[in-house]
Amino acid sequence: MALVYVTRRMHFSASHRLHSEALDEQQNSEIYGACNNPLGHGHNYDLEITVCGEPDPVTGMVIDLKNLKELVQREVIDHVDHKHLNYEVDFLAGQVPTAENIAVAIWRVLEKKFSGVKLFRVKLYETERNLVEYYGA
Amino acid sequence: MALVYVTRRMHFSASHRLHSEALDEQQNSEIYGACNNPLGHGHNYDLEITVCGEPDPVTGMVIDLKNLKELVQREVIDHVDHKHLNYEVDFLAGQVPTAENIAVAIWRVLEKKFSGVKLFRVKLYETERNLVEYYGA
Amino acid sequence: MALVYVTRRMHFSASHRLHSEALDEQQNSEIYGACNNPLGHGHNYDLEITVCGEPDPVTGMVIDLKNLKELVQREVIDHVDHKHLNYEVDFLAGQVPTAENIAVAIWRVLEKKFSGVKLFRVKLYETERNLVEYYGA
Amino acid sequence: MALVYVTRRMHFSASHRLHSEALDEQQNSEIYGACNNPLGHGHNYDLEITVCGEPDPVTGMVIDLKNLKELVQREVIDHVDHKHLNYEVDFLAGQVPTAENIAVAIWRVLEKKFSGVKLFRVKLYETERNLVEYYGA
Amino acid sequence: MALVYVTRRMHFSASHRLHSEALDEQQNSEIYGACNNPLGHGHNYDLEITVCGEPDPVTGMVIDLKNLKELVQREVIDHVDHKHLNYEVDFLAGQVPTAENIAVAIWRVLEKKFSGVKLFRVKLYETERNLVEYYGA
Amino acid sequence: MALVYVTRRMHFSASHRLHSEALDEQQNSEIYGACNNPLGHGHNYDLEITVCGEPDPVTGMVIDLKNLKELVQREVIDHVDHKHLNYEVDFLAGQVPTAENIAVAIWRVLEKKFSGVKLFRVKLYETERNLVEYYGA
Repeated sequence: MALVYVTRRMHFSASHRLHSEALDEQQNSEIYGACNNPLGHGHNYDLEITVCGEPDPVTGMVIDLKNLKELVQREVIDHVDHKHLNYEVDFLAGQVPTAENIAVAIWRVLEKKFSGVKLFRVKLYETERNLVEYYGA
Repeated sequence: MALVYVTRRMHFSASHRLHSEALDEQQNSEIYGACNNPLGHGHNYDLEITVCGEPDPVTGMVIDLKNLKELVQREVIDHVDHKHLNYEVDFLAGQVPTAENIAVAIWRVLEKKFSGVKLFRVKLYETERNLVEYYGA
Repeated sequence: MALVYVTRRMHFSASHRLHSEALDEQQNSEIYGACNNPLGHGHNYDLEITVCGEPDPVTGMVIDLKNLKELVQREVIDHVDHKHLNYEVDFLAGQVPTAENIAVAIWRVLEKKFSGVKLFRVKLYETERNLVEYYGA
Repeated sequence: MALVYVTRRMHFSASHRLHSEALDEQQNSEIYGACNNPLGHGHNYDLEITVCGEPDPVTGMVIDLKNLKELVQREVIDHVDHKHLNYEVDFLAGQVPTAENIAVAIWRVLEKKFSGVKLFRVKLYETERNLVEYYGA
Repeated sequence: MALVYVTRRMHFSASHRLHSEALDEQQNSEIYGACNNPLGHGHNYDLEITVCGEPDPVTGMVIDLKNLKELVQREVIDHVDHKHLNYEVDFLAGQVPTAENIAVAIWRVLEKKFSGVKLFRVKLYETERNLVEYYGA
Repeated sequence: MALVYVTRRMHFSASHRLHSEALDEQQNSEIYGACNNPLGHGHNYDLEITVCGEPDPVTGMVIDLKNLKELVQREVIDHVDHKHLNYEVDFLAGQVPTAENIAVAIWRVLEKKFSGVKLFRVKLYETERNLVEYYGA
């Protein structure tokens, strides 16, 4: 028996604005700085989805990476790629699209979608230098 | 005598929308596809500015990289970072902000700004997989 | 007028064996070393295709990157990805699949396929540390 | 007292074919798709070996990285680099060379080879976008 | 409730020499090899600082990345960048500047500096291929 | 006939100090800033050596990459790796070890060492963001 962690790295480009409805104009500006620009800005996001499970004794695979890729494409990437994260993404509605909130929201979209393996980690790079990870707890 | 090429890599995050005023709705949609999304999308752009010249016999430098960095920061990055490229950038006004047009516009901003060295190349990565280069001709 | 160079980076995984029919067993072994292993070995190749042309004054594009990507996918990647380069690739038939020969062969496949822009460079990474470039001359 | 994790990244290029003796022709084709190509395909694998232990109070080292590198080179890399993973690697005999199975097999090769430190993780990148991790349990 | 891990990647260039006062000349030479060169050598270090905490329900942030960046810049980077790690860094005084010791020392500098979040990991790349991690225990 | 450019990427770690004997203390400090630190600092340098020539019709190789690697290792890397560039490198004696001067010096070391191919370019990364290129003219 061996528990193996399998990761697929995906990519999307999107725009967003950091702005909280619970804060006034000045607070938003102070807290988010340049990220509060009303016209928004954008990123090339890298998203790594990690699942864990035991390799099937016959196939040697924890999960078919092609299936993992298609699932993440359909459930996540198709909803966020070339989109404005504040206005066009159902699973982000009502949330400030910080990297933290996006990662947690993606976890919630994906966690029920696997059988035979468990979602282990959502890792989201907003830039090469800024990244967040969420493990579902 | 030795002609040496010196490059500084910089970074900015911005949103944009590919949309031409010279085209109608349907043409814009057909030509630019997902990039025509009215709410825009965004990228982490990497920008490489290359100058060439002879190393100074005393200092061994073609250009002080700190000066090069500050010049590009002031003349380019401060104008585009965390901005919407369609609406907030003087040197892109009236242009579709394709990578091609952005690179040429950055060349025009920078070409007159150097003394002792010549601007050689503007290289712009829109993503890790899509990039353009302009040499001023 | 402005000549801009546009590059798309693509990817394929393949196996190959360096072995020349014009050499005997011992010469092949001496020249190619571990790369002459009869069972072959493999690489994740990165392929960068660069074209040059003037941005269209209306669209701001030299070439639609989606079209460039689809062309390279159809004419090159579909023929080499997950293939054995010695036995399964028409455009490499009769050639030792060194990075040099592959790059020249890809040039010859692509050079006639563009209109309005010119193929400028084929750049092939066999590994992160070994790469070749061909400019068609 | 301080438990520090030390990682060395290594590299090898190999070919493989995903094909299970426990499956018939059609099942192999359906499950593994292009990876079932009888002539195989290949990858540049990146392998990260992580050990953990306390820095020696005199030398400040958990393990001499030169020793770690030589051990992994001798026990793993020399056996897989420029090889066909289905036919030429003792520690993979009888297994489908999926990334999962390779990682577990490398763990089993290495786990008994350390003294003073413990093997913590085997991380294997099959491509930049597909990777697996095994922690020995 | 959601525990999210937030990482900022920073950079510094420094020189060091691996040499222990507790060892004689010959031992130092045998243990550290080329790294014992009396004139030292240097690296571009990449430093990743990870903190964990719950996203603020109003701002959606675990920590303001700008604050994290400034803290690490002021407390760590300003002390080591363009410095000789054996002679010029208070928090490394009396220690052999191995990657292991540097990571632990950086942990000790930073661990008391956060409120509302906890320091989770210090990850230090000495080169692309050699890296260490410390979790404070 | 086909002229192909072949590149090998190598690596070395070294320390240096930017300081010119032709300048006084204050000038050195003003011009080189933090790089003038008397105790020096260091970098992980990446060095790319490019040669050009025609692929041999029998072997399909412009140059045996193993030979190229060994030549650069012996003539350059062995002289600079884990060294202080101001004091220990014959081919840099009497020069300020800026990236520009190092690249030109490496060109002069290598240019006469090839037969059948020509040295085309020396590309030196001092950091991921600062790099220089020299083409021998």
